[in-house]
Amino acid sequence: MAAVAAAMRWRVLRVLLVLSVAGLGAKGTPQPPNILLLLMDDMGWGDLGVYGEPSRETPNLDRMAAEGMLFPNFYSANPLCSPSRAALLTGRLPIRNGFYTTNGQARNAYTPQEIVGGIPDTELLLPKLLKQAGYVSKIVGKWHLGHRPQFHPLKHGFDEWFGSPNCHFGPYDNRARPNIPVYRDWEMVGRFYEEFPINTKTGEANLTQIYLQEALDFIKRQQAAQRPFFLYWAIDATHAPVYASKPFLGTSQRGRYGDAVREIDDSVGKILNLLTDLRIAENTFVFFTSDNGAALISAPKQGGSNGPFLCGKQTTFEGGMREPAIAWWPGHIPAGQVSHQLGSIMDLFTTSLSLAGLEPPSDRVTDGLDLLPAMLQGQLTDRPIFYYRGNTLMAVTLGQYKAHFWTWTNSWEEFSQGVDFCPGQNISGVTTHTQEEHTKLPLIFHLGRDPGERYPLSFASTEYLNVLHRITPVAQQHQEALVPGQPQLNVCNRAVMNWAPPGCEKLGKCLTPPESVPEKCSWPH
Amino acid sequence: MAAVAAAMRWRVLRVLLVLSVAGLGAKGTPQPPNILLLLMDDMGWGDLGVYGEPSRETPNLDRMAAEGMLFPNFYSANPLCSPSRAALLTGRLPIRNGFYTTNGQARNAYTPQEIVGGIPDTELLLPKLLKQAGYVSKIVGKWHLGHRPQFHPLKHGFDEWFGSPNCHFGPYDNRARPNIPVYRDWEMVGRFYEEFPINTKTGEANLTQIYLQEALDFIKRQQAAQRPFFLYWAIDATHAPVYASKPFLGTSQRGRYGDAVREIDDSVGKILNLLTDLRIAENTFVFFTSDNGAALISAPKQGGSNGPFLCGKQTTFEGGMREPAIAWWPGHIPAGQVSHQLGSIMDLFTTSLSLAGLEPPSDRVTDGLDLLPAMLQGQLTDRPIFYYRGNTLMAVTLGQYKAHFWTWTNSWEEFSQGVDFCPGQNISGVTTHTQEEHTKLPLIFHLGRDPGERYPLSFASTEYLNVLHRITPVAQQHQEALVPGQPQLNVCNRAVMNWAPPGCEKLGKCLTPPESVPEKCSWPH
Repeated sequence: MAAVAAAMRWRVLRVLLVLSVAGLGAKGTPQPPNILLLLMDDMGWGDLGVYGEPSRETPNLDRMAAEGMLFPNFYSANPLCSPSRAALLTGRLPIRNGFYTTNGQARNAYTPQEIVGGIPDTELLLPKLLKQAGYVSKIVGKWHLGHRPQFHPLKHGFDEWFGSPNCHFGPYDNRARPNIPVYRDWEMVGRFYEEFPINTKTGEANLTQIYLQEALDFIKRQQAAQRPFFLYWAIDATHAPVYASKPFLGTSQRGRYGDAVREIDDSVGKILNLLTDLRIAENTFVFFTSDNGAALISAPKQGGSNGPFLCGKQTTFEGGMREPAIAWWPGHIPAGQVSHQLGSIMDLFTTSLSLAGLEPPSDRVTDGLDLLPAMLQGQLTDRPIFYYRGNTLMAVTLGQYKAHFWTWTNSWEEFSQGVDFCPGQNISGVTTHTQEEHTKLPLIFHLGRDPGERYPLSFASTEYLNVLHRITPVAQQHQEALVPGQPQLNVCNRAVMNWAPPGCEKLGKCLTPPESVPEKCSWPH
Repeated sequence: MAAVAAAMRWRVLRVLLVLSVAGLGAKGTPQPPNILLLLMDDMGWGDLGVYGEPSRETPNLDRMAAEGMLFPNFYSANPLCSPSRAALLTGRLPIRNGFYTTNGQARNAYTPQEIVGGIPDTELLLPKLLKQAGYVSKIVGKWHLGHRPQFHPLKHGFDEWFGSPNCHFGPYDNRARPNIPVYRDWEMVGRFYEEFPINTKTGEANLTQIYLQEALDFIKRQQAAQRPFFLYWAIDATHAPVYASKPFLGTSQRGRYGDAVREIDDSVGKILNLLTDLRIAENTFVFFTSDNGAALISAPKQGGSNGPFLCGKQTTFEGGMREPAIAWWPGHIPAGQVSHQLGSIMDLFTTSLSLAGLEPPSDRVTDGLDLLPAMLQGQLTDRPIFYYRGNTLMAVTLGQYKAHFWTWTNSWEEFSQGVDFCPGQNISGVTTHTQEEHTKLPLIFHLGRDPGERYPLSFASTEYLNVLHRITPVAQQHQEALVPGQPQLNVCNRAVMNWAPPGCEKLGKCLTPPESVPEKCSWPH
């Protein structure tokens, strides 16, 4: 009851707050704050100066942290791109919103060109909900929630889109596999490696500059129209093949990956400066984070850093899911603060709704937490972090303790072929190459004393038993109450690839699909 | 010639600078700045919030960095305590000043109670040199340059001492081994675990508070007397057995080690605040660093973090020798800066002399560099970092490149007994358990792209060959010109332990030494 009363008090406070901070719209009505989510691709916790990156080449992001709030304990919803992004926009775990596979146990799945599935129509995405509060929404960059027509972002609440439906892998020959299209709104305007060149040899591409201009232009237009906006800036320069534009190439101490980070940092600086110049900084909530941990498989040339954490992308160790996270909202979020709230990318859904004065949908489970009490009053709320890999609950963090119910990096077969998600790291019984079940006696780590997950607590210790008795019920209740969504990432078909996206006719860039052969997608890890 | 001219210009500039910033002494003569070196014990690069420690429990040190200059590429002179400290105070590599052993190749040696040797009389220590410029010098905390009478710090230039000659290991039974004495100036005033209790079970000890008071008191006295001072605050709470005083015990998210760090952080805040309150901050140069990397062998309960770097104390990987480093001198060193100058703990010797308007001794080689151009003008000077283990040049860093001429963590025999300097880390051909020679074809890493030393450059690459041709001559010239000092850490003798230190009679605490049996010290790694 105390919790309910506290929640009520907060709800009232929030409404007062939103009203008090609101600007005035075109018609003199209070306007909720703009929302700007800066989502990085495969950027690791350790990639920013403020998170200890030794070369310290992110002055703008470091300044953003100095003027805002840093979350050292912030998590993605999955160690892989598509599920994490689906979770961000739905506020729900991938196991609920369908962004997982049942083709194998504990498999990472995403949305390559062969994928048949995508975001189900039954899911309510953030931009759609924000429409109720008058927001105009744009996605710049990578969508990754399905590339077939029914999954198009403008069918799910976005008003504008500039970017691509899939990763910028390539170049392809347009015979076995088409190059990935780039869309403006409903129609494609070209393809990567064609109208939008990426030189995989030199790493040169001006895509971040294009995405920057799209962001700046959108912000200026909405400010002029005095409409509240939601901008989802989902850029991908730090995902292999890593790229940067010419002025940034070769400028980093960290190689090409660092060049990409420097260009992103510069762009974030320009975006924040524009908000300040337009005098809307105090009415714009900005959050910076990443979709999953650094892809150590691509390191050191095209992969980032997970700082002191274990392993990287694809794994449910901290390196796979702990993310850089900075909130910035001058005049509201106090400057230079650090919040140890356990945060999740799904919280951005709930927090954004809260900023808009909206409630999460009442007809479904939402996993995201409203972070405004943490950001504005420094409150800390106990909540678990669930680490899924595909259909499997691998681990749970509660407070400082993390319990692994399953451990796996990847198979011996893959590992022997050089696929290594934990290069240079080897912790006996933890970084296992067979799927190891620990559901009865989980491996438990204290992440404060041992952020690198190197020293499991002794099963015989009082500390272990105390934690076990607290964390097991949390996992059990979660699993018992869970109604998994229909898995969307099971079926692949080469015929559904981006052969003839809408708009291809105008450009003369339609390709002929092969015969339709649905098959089970292969998810090796 | 250009270099000489530049050096001349700088020398003139420095003198002008020192005069311009100088306060006025008691007699109205210009007074050089006070020098305060805060030397931590076994603290790692990754232990401060500003260096990315996830729990972020060092607000005072983070503020020191925000008001001063951070050096992310700063190195100790050795991966072990005594040699590193000897190097700091002499400005010379341990291989020159004698703080090494020839009992075995590439062995870490230090000054336990059995050690017969210590700092040679022929070495000129910083406090002795600073006397020429009128400085009063005090060491608070761990000396570690030999505990026999001839090595006493007051015989080597210090005017005051409060602290111990060796590590605070114990408790001992005073029969097989005496407890370590604590000195005030010339005489002991008690022993650890007796008059100066350390509870190894709870971790409680109030030593950091005592050392803090010693520092505050000394600063106040010198300020009152208007005499320039050199304070060497060499505290040891983060060296196992790790301790903290009661108000700090149990307050960290990082366990006992974090409690010690929090107390140190609090103490540094109090010291800096005193300088400000006394209005001498602008006339006091403060530098914070550590003697070697975190002792991962003591982790997670009593060892710190080396952030993203490989291995820890005892090794010549980055985790063994890259250190946190912050310079603070309000009004002189610009606030919030990061310098990528390759720095060494030996630079504190040369820089301190420079601040005092003095030159390093001209009759010997000094390895330290004057960092004032880096700190005051943002200059970067090319210089190598030499990584020694005992008598062996293991590695050299030049710019971003590090070449390993030898690799070794420790022996298979030790490793199989659980001695592990690289827990959870295993890089094939790099973290070797036999001494591997690579003097012809060193393993070369690019520390910007690969700070964790995981990906040696390919021997066949152009980059490798280019670096090899630059770095090999640097190592060769260094080795050819080197005249090793007489090794001081070869001979041990239980009779020389702290049985009857000066002052023991007054306290009734003299113990009877055993028969004198000199023997070769055993240095297993």
